[in-house]
Amino acid sequence: MTYDYDLFVIGGGSGGVRASRLAASLGKRVAIAEEYRFGGTCVIRGCVPKKLFVYASQFHEHFEDAVGYGWEVGKNTFNWKKLTAAKDKEIARLEGLYRQGLENNGVEIVESRAELIDAHTIRLTKTGRTVTAEKIVIATGGTPNPHAALPGHELCISSNEAFDLPELPRSILIAGGGYIAVEFANIFHGLGAHVTLIYRGKEILSRFDQDMRHGLHKAMTEKGIRIMLTDVIENISKTAEGGLMAKTKNGESMVVDSVMLALGRDPNTQGLGLEAAGVEINERGAIIVDKYSRTNVPNIYALGDVTDRVQLTPVAIHEAMCFIETEYKNNPTAPDHDVIATAVFSQPEIGTVGLSEEDAVKRHSELDIYRAEFRPMKTTISGRVEKTIMKLIVDAVSRKVLGAHILGHDAGEMVQLLGVALKAGVTKEDFDRTMAVHPTAAEEFVTMYKPSYSIKNAKRI
Amino acid sequence: MTYDYDLFVIGGGSGGVRASRLAASLGKRVAIAEEYRFGGTCVIRGCVPKKLFVYASQFHEHFEDAVGYGWEVGKNTFNWKKLTAAKDKEIARLEGLYRQGLENNGVEIVESRAELIDAHTIRLTKTGRTVTAEKIVIATGGTPNPHAALPGHELCISSNEAFDLPELPRSILIAGGGYIAVEFANIFHGLGAHVTLIYRGKEILSRFDQDMRHGLHKAMTEKGIRIMLTDVIENISKTAEGGLMAKTKNGESMVVDSVMLALGRDPNTQGLGLEAAGVEINERGAIIVDKYSRTNVPNIYALGDVTDRVQLTPVAIHEAMCFIETEYKNNPTAPDHDVIATAVFSQPEIGTVGLSEEDAVKRHSELDIYRAEFRPMKTTISGRVEKTIMKLIVDAVSRKVLGAHILGHDAGEMVQLLGVALKAGVTKEDFDRTMAVHPTAAEEFVTMYKPSYSIKNAKRI
Repeated sequence: MTYDYDLFVIGGGSGGVRASRLAASLGKRVAIAEEYRFGGTCVIRGCVPKKLFVYASQFHEHFEDAVGYGWEVGKNTFNWKKLTAAKDKEIARLEGLYRQGLENNGVEIVESRAELIDAHTIRLTKTGRTVTAEKIVIATGGTPNPHAALPGHELCISSNEAFDLPELPRSILIAGGGYIAVEFANIFHGLGAHVTLIYRGKEILSRFDQDMRHGLHKAMTEKGIRIMLTDVIENISKTAEGGLMAKTKNGESMVVDSVMLALGRDPNTQGLGLEAAGVEINERGAIIVDKYSRTNVPNIYALGDVTDRVQLTPVAIHEAMCFIETEYKNNPTAPDHDVIATAVFSQPEIGTVGLSEEDAVKRHSELDIYRAEFRPMKTTISGRVEKTIMKLIVDAVSRKVLGAHILGHDAGEMVQLLGVALKAGVTKEDFDRTMAVHPTAAEEFVTMYKPSYSIKNAKRI
Repeated sequence: MTYDYDLFVIGGGSGGVRASRLAASLGKRVAIAEEYRFGGTCVIRGCVPKKLFVYASQFHEHFEDAVGYGWEVGKNTFNWKKLTAAKDKEIARLEGLYRQGLENNGVEIVESRAELIDAHTIRLTKTGRTVTAEKIVIATGGTPNPHAALPGHELCISSNEAFDLPELPRSILIAGGGYIAVEFANIFHGLGAHVTLIYRGKEILSRFDQDMRHGLHKAMTEKGIRIMLTDVIENISKTAEGGLMAKTKNGESMVVDSVMLALGRDPNTQGLGLEAAGVEINERGAIIVDKYSRTNVPNIYALGDVTDRVQLTPVAIHEAMCFIETEYKNNPTAPDHDVIATAVFSQPEIGTVGLSEEDAVKRHSELDIYRAEFRPMKTTISGRVEKTIMKLIVDAVSRKVLGAHILGHDAGEMVQLLGVALKAGVTKEDFDRTMAVHPTAAEEFVTMYKPSYSIKNAKRI
């Protein structure tokens, strides 16, 4: 039996584009279907616009800091529409690069939603045409959870809409305690909005190291962001003046211009025809895959956020590259999801790789914790109240560095390279043997000669 | 025979202060003599004020970049006197911390120049008093070469004076191609001066990787700094209008407000009484030491810049700690001068660790070079013309990463942590196995999967 394509990819995000581009470069007949815009969450409404907005939101700190350094700074105003227009232009450029990469490798681009009819047949909804493929990759990503059970949820925005609001809200209530909620809280605050964050848990950023969680909470509060913990929104309604009234479980009520829900993301599997093709999903709606990203249907694979393994762009790309190795290069390669460095682009940033202190305690009986908290050099003259925290979690027996955590400027850049060291399995002695680069913040990582404290069988000693 | 002190340290810089503080904390009777201010070159007229001036000089770029991000930025003016006053305050604070650290550990502080009379006797020139010590550490540092053979050198400033000029020069000619010359060129440019750099060599920053040298040269030129190569100043004279006229060997002449000489640094050994004590120096005037920082006189040691090994603050501190291990803890420890990461705080910064491509070619027959050049994400909207360059030098046989180089923002922070990885001897495969942190600049280091080119027996292939 012959198929129209060797490979049909559903979803033009990071994972799908990489898989189709690489397969086509190997001479395979490949098509990729995308119903919206190429680039996926990352490029269109995630990492990229987010980072651009973070840059925009940091300038007011530069203006303030300059004064201590001898600058007299004129009055500054911010124009939201100029930012969103500049962002749109940049994203259009990046989308063009994605398309170009596909075209240059001979991938057929299908601008349509695609749904499975059976294990080898795909219906393109725009035209109704059906095509067949030997192998199919599903890389449809995820979408913000709409929180449909919340009365008034339809009045709220998600991160999708946050980048394209017609006006900068004067005040915004953000629900959620994950990195998306935290990043947007800092962005909107930096651009001049009054920001309140509400989260059901006891502290923001669950699963991060406690020092990072408390440290960022403190920094955000000191800047003027209000953080409400152990509380949730119960309902939202419109006010006569055009604002939104939010009432919380603990009995607070507040009126704001906008409410943003950042309460997790759901895999995009609805209406994909997975049942028709016999592809299994889990209770969260995510496609179930084996270690090689294979679904239960032998010729169908799934990559990236739709599998709900690790929801990160580089992971989706890595999974795509492993798929190519496994299926088209006769080199079975399972994605490696161990020791992944990540960053939260809050202000200050968080960078984290490996185990938090709390997780390390559960797995190792003897730990040495090295922790430094200090004012970054720039603040000595700017006068900004701000602390940098750096932390190493070390197995006291093997001396292996199990985790590294940073709260502070450039934490994302730093943790990328700490990631290389930790992935290579370096010991604390490797850090100690490294000469400091002075004056930097990162030099603190190589000059923490003595443990701040030790932990034995889950007890600080 | 009993001595007044177990240890007498001459010089209150990074090395001397660390050695005396640690020895005193072990119960030794210790004195430290300093004729000027505690903190040494690093704190008083080196790394620290330099970095503060770098911060000051970067704000105008923030003001410019903000515009693309939707900010309307008012008129900004810079006040040099405010900066130098703020810097003075911060340095006084740091000097106080150094003194406090000494006092808290029971080190006797002697505010005087100290000279050797013999191997155990020191004369304190302020009072004429002599004291004796069992061991003596010389840590007197270095000083800018005055270039006394240059006609008009007495009209010039060095880095010592640059931090305390009464006014910001409108124009400055900086002689030298090392990191000090380059850093000040960027600082003065960033604060608004017209800057010309003149250097005898074919390219700035000799011994750095060629890509870093060319890349920074290009970036500086694009900003408006003039760089004159293969030329030197022949003489300097005063003009009637109060400026300085500099004539160069190649026949150029120019009038500027200031001329700064950054033509190397000399060890501070003159008039120290080294001959009287029998301590040997080399032809550059540096104290000759063995691998444990011992001079030829058994009880006299030398640390830091005065030994002209590696002129860096962290190295002096490291040598001091090794001295303490060796002499007072019965644990002979030679300083480790191998694979030292360093940064040039130019704008953009350079971070470098391990071998340059040029040095690697001399020592390894097969190399793979991984090189990326890209526009940093921030510039996509700000419109700033600027390129980041990242480079890995890899031994093609062992796959060990021999060198890592960065030109770009935060290069200093990045190279500190690359330093940990390279010190631990990681391979290119360790980089490849590391997941990217997106969006960062540093992720480029872990996504350069294919060599840009290879080198076999010094030939590109």
